[in-house]
Amino acid sequence: MSAVPEDTMPTNPPSAAEATRMYREVRESAGAIARQLEANRAVVGELAALLRRERPRLVATGARGSSDNAATFAKYLIETRLGVTTTSAAPSVQSIYAARPELDGALFLAISQSGKSPDLVAQATAARRAGARVVAMVNVVDSPLAAAADVVVPLHAGPELSVAATKSYLCSLSALLQLAAEWGEDAHLRDALARVPDALDAGWNEDWSALVDGLADARNLFVVGRGFGLSAAQEVALKFKETCGLHAEAFSAAEVQHGPMTLVDRGFPVLFFAQHDDSFDSTIAVAERFRERDARVWVAAPGGGDLRFAAITDPACAPLLAVHRCYGAINALALRRGRDPDAPPHLRKVTETR
Amino acid sequence: MSAVPEDTMPTNPPSAAEATRMYREVRESAGAIARQLEANRAVVGELAALLRRERPRLVATGARGSSDNAATFAKYLIETRLGVTTTSAAPSVQSIYAARPELDGALFLAISQSGKSPDLVAQATAARRAGARVVAMVNVVDSPLAAAADVVVPLHAGPELSVAATKSYLCSLSALLQLAAEWGEDAHLRDALARVPDALDAGWNEDWSALVDGLADARNLFVVGRGFGLSAAQEVALKFKETCGLHAEAFSAAEVQHGPMTLVDRGFPVLFFAQHDDSFDSTIAVAERFRERDARVWVAAPGGGDLRFAAITDPACAPLLAVHRCYGAINALALRRGRDPDAPPHLRKVTETR
Repeated sequence: MSAVPEDTMPTNPPSAAEATRMYREVRESAGAIARQLEANRAVVGELAALLRRERPRLVATGARGSSDNAATFAKYLIETRLGVTTTSAAPSVQSIYAARPELDGALFLAISQSGKSPDLVAQATAARRAGARVVAMVNVVDSPLAAAADVVVPLHAGPELSVAATKSYLCSLSALLQLAAEWGEDAHLRDALARVPDALDAGWNEDWSALVDGLADARNLFVVGRGFGLSAAQEVALKFKETCGLHAEAFSAAEVQHGPMTLVDRGFPVLFFAQHDDSFDSTIAVAERFRERDARVWVAAPGGGDLRFAAITDPACAPLLAVHRCYGAINALALRRGRDPDAPPHLRKVTETR
Repeated sequence: MSAVPEDTMPTNPPSAAEATRMYREVRESAGAIARQLEANRAVVGELAALLRRERPRLVATGARGSSDNAATFAKYLIETRLGVTTTSAAPSVQSIYAARPELDGALFLAISQSGKSPDLVAQATAARRAGARVVAMVNVVDSPLAAAADVVVPLHAGPELSVAATKSYLCSLSALLQLAAEWGEDAHLRDALARVPDALDAGWNEDWSALVDGLADARNLFVVGRGFGLSAAQEVALKFKETCGLHAEAFSAAEVQHGPMTLVDRGFPVLFFAQHDDSFDSTIAVAERFRERDARVWVAAPGGGDLRFAAITDPACAPLLAVHRCYGAINALALRRGRDPDAPPHLRKVTETR
């Protein structure tokens, strides 16, 4: 497996799309994940053993932006594979209202690229004081968030300089998948995960130009996923906003039918993420209803659909593969729309909120 | 207090805006809430005593559409006032993945106008079997969801015929506020809540025409709230979509700064909801930053701001007052945009998803 695709070799001068930081960082993800799975084997194995012993009654996630989209993935993964209720801890409950919901016997799972967000550090510190076991998944291990945690799971994404987080999101998903596989002693998931780095590189060659062409002048976009796919939908919706200036909004395939779909009329663009589990048929059914009204619909699915990403044996891995390929399309779309994906207006890499 | 405003009295023929079902149902909310608080005194009092005795370790909410926006309110209210972690139970975890996170010792709180949504009924039934205390806040008490619950808290909204749920959302908030006040034996909140029906009628006369004028031709809108105000933002964003065909999206005042705000440039419309608690200053600060880039900003605040709603002594009541007044503006905007707010394209009153 190689993290460098042939078409970026020096003999072939890079295209404009390949010259962005965002492009390079997305393409580094496969190698980063391979390194991460190897490097974290011991720490994640020990953490998994600890969690099997302690049996947390609840998982509370703390995260912002792309990392919060990874936290959505954590919720589905932990609830469906480990049977432990997982909730997003709203920072304002503590920072604005000074309330401290009981966290004794809970696992507080913080996810952050920089590990610097002051509200997240405060949340983790308070959670630890309230009796939670605090785990930090961070890319920058020499960070205040890592210092506030009981256990640090390094993301090993390498330096991420693009304002739009990409490889740190993908590395958060692989770290969560490794934790779930070890915690649940799930050999099937472990095997699937081991194939992810190669699958990422293989899936990169799928043709997503139809999406780039179709969204060149779009003002609005719905991105729809279900179950594991909801995190993918949330993450690419954020990236379409950040780098393409496109108002994209994410929904679950169920929620979009409770009101939002009234906007989906002739020509309205909707991107679906499907994966091979019991959500597949209901997701496709919604896509078909939207096609019937002449909406502009793309279904991205493992090994098929209007847009393909690599198929893998466990559907929990699908978001990683889907988002990775979609990042490439988003990078190309940003340039097509005359924007620099590395320098979105008004944004900085670390956002300080409370 | 009267639920019928003078300007809809027979001597004054109703305007087009006043002739919609949506308008009538919004205007019925104050009377409905007054009746609800009175009628539910005993059942909510008993439920509160039960919860103080049983001390649920967790609250899991089950809801869809507008009711899920009320569930967001429940999360902030219960976490900040009762200190109990509150999580949104994703229906697909059970319906798609057949997983059953442990709910022994938890409170499962289902919120629904019709009480008919099959996925919600299945969720409530499974939660009860898993050992949760199941409470259903429903408008239709003779419904499968009510039958699946241990305790039913009727919303007393009266018949709601408009596809766009309005008074059932407001009645869900008042039911949640009454439950929180009794559960926490919070006399301050109880007193504030008693004033809500009169405040709703008083606040109706505030002038929100600037918002209607400003959004007459808008394609996009961000709605921003924080803490209690996030539920208000989510709910009106859904209503702007459903009835006005306007792509409105809700964010917390913190989350909008983590990426989405790159869209907020000259002329981009943003509606803020503020309330008088510690979130006020940070919410206003974000609004000011957006004004500096010539975005089109409205701040709705109790007793002040660009758009006013009625002030009340407890900030937890603010979303009720803000959304109520905003519903009136949304109804007017729908008509201004040539739409019938009572008959959004593609939608039915009861949506069946799993």
